[in-house]
Amino acid sequence: MSRIAYVNGQYVPHSEGAVHIEDRGYQFADGVYEVFAIHHGKLIGVQGHMDRLGHSLSELRIDWPMKPGPFMVVVNEVVRRNHVKNGLVYIQVTRGVARRDHPFPADCVSSMVVTAKKMKPLDKVALSKGIGVITIPDIRWKRKDIKSVSLLPNCLGKQQAREAGAFEAWMIDDQGMVTEGTSTNAWIVTKDGELVTRDISSAILNGITRLAVLEAAKEAGVSFSERPFSEQEALEAKEAFITSSTSHVKAVTSINDNPVGNGHVGELTARLLDLYVDFIEAKGGPQHTDKWN
Amino acid sequence: MSRIAYVNGQYVPHSEGAVHIEDRGYQFADGVYEVFAIHHGKLIGVQGHMDRLGHSLSELRIDWPMKPGPFMVVVNEVVRRNHVKNGLVYIQVTRGVARRDHPFPADCVSSMVVTAKKMKPLDKVALSKGIGVITIPDIRWKRKDIKSVSLLPNCLGKQQAREAGAFEAWMIDDQGMVTEGTSTNAWIVTKDGELVTRDISSAILNGITRLAVLEAAKEAGVSFSERPFSEQEALEAKEAFITSSTSHVKAVTSINDNPVGNGHVGELTARLLDLYVDFIEAKGGPQHTDKWN
Repeated sequence: MSRIAYVNGQYVPHSEGAVHIEDRGYQFADGVYEVFAIHHGKLIGVQGHMDRLGHSLSELRIDWPMKPGPFMVVVNEVVRRNHVKNGLVYIQVTRGVARRDHPFPADCVSSMVVTAKKMKPLDKVALSKGIGVITIPDIRWKRKDIKSVSLLPNCLGKQQAREAGAFEAWMIDDQGMVTEGTSTNAWIVTKDGELVTRDISSAILNGITRLAVLEAAKEAGVSFSERPFSEQEALEAKEAFITSSTSHVKAVTSINDNPVGNGHVGELTARLLDLYVDFIEAKGGPQHTDKWN
Repeated sequence: MSRIAYVNGQYVPHSEGAVHIEDRGYQFADGVYEVFAIHHGKLIGVQGHMDRLGHSLSELRIDWPMKPGPFMVVVNEVVRRNHVKNGLVYIQVTRGVARRDHPFPADCVSSMVVTAKKMKPLDKVALSKGIGVITIPDIRWKRKDIKSVSLLPNCLGKQQAREAGAFEAWMIDDQGMVTEGTSTNAWIVTKDGELVTRDISSAILNGITRLAVLEAAKEAGVSFSERPFSEQEALEAKEAFITSSTSHVKAVTSINDNPVGNGHVGELTARLLDLYVDFIEAKGGPQHTDKWN
């Protein structure tokens, strides 16, 4: 059975989904996206993703392609037509099609593409295996709070990681501080036992899973700090992990080929994975989602 | 008569030109482009554009979609089918279509799109009218030497310029130095009479028109410096202008609403426009095009 995509008003076979060559998403990366996880038939973090999409669109002054109600009808319909119980739904909105010219066109109808993909269900055993990360310079633009499709440096970074035998690359800013991974947020437990992830600013994308983990930790009485941490602190950390809608909470057991802590999955990391899974199963996602930079 | 575009092996009506929704150009800005000027039926700066395209593709490890010979056949055919005597031809090459995932896909065939557009012939009188620029922070990524389609910050900057009643925005780096315009290179004649444009590095895109003007100046015995210049130097400049394949040599007569020099087109600027036009009519474009960052 073939995959179905939603493309600008129509449900079409995925293989036939196409956009115009002058869609500004193609010529200018003038668009944004969201990826929702689907967990046992439920969309995770809907409010968070919708709020963040609103932030991205508003910062770029791109119109919503439709009101949130119909928007979610389309998203759910794509999930339904693709029979996805576990996996993801990908939504891209661009400024639309216009004769190529840098300024915003006067009359432009936002483009909207939605696809869905089946994946293996969230698997705590697999997640607890631990992955390696490398560190690389953060060469991205200065508005990482906008979830734009301007992802070329992220692709280059992820490729560099894979060629180094690692799963992810953590990006280091000009001050020597970790910003985030190329498609995940970065967390450590310092050698002194402090749980740390970078605070919200235009230097990172505020992950929906990041927010859920913070709320789950708070509820469970696990203390944490939201602040920048240095590459050095990461290299000396007791534990480390990454979060994202598709990586959930994934232990990092090596950084630049050096073991993190004892090289095994950290205790707090394992606990946070449990807390996160319980949290999304009970609440469906973060409840507080109003700050994006 | 309708415009014709070349899209991945086919010549199609421009309005029907389409790429797959999972073309990495659309989802990741994982692609590059070139814009050739067409002047009285001749493509300008072919070797320069092809060399720079080679640089961009090689830095991103994207395969050429075809060898340079057939590539130029396609480009010329699009120009011919659109009957363009004066205007431009736009060429976009992306890594191709693949299931969405950040690292480079194993098997991917580069996408290639070519469009052409008629424009008014180069008009020295119109060019000599003078335009305004504003200055804005340079928020782009760190590899501006790659002519990628990751142009979102450029679009935002150009839009900001237009809303301020200006034609272009000059971007200022963290050291207070001008990098370039959002789609043009920046030049000044300092208050001491020094002709300056920024030297080649990953901070700017080395323009083909920039190279042609430098060669034309050299031939005519006009001295110049390739070095970063500060926003302050620009504000105090005697003359200023921008260069690009479609703006040619265009005088800047105000910066942030303050007149440049006496507020009229500068003498050296006018001379360089003449030299540039003579140069491309005689030589077709820059002859030395081997340095891209």
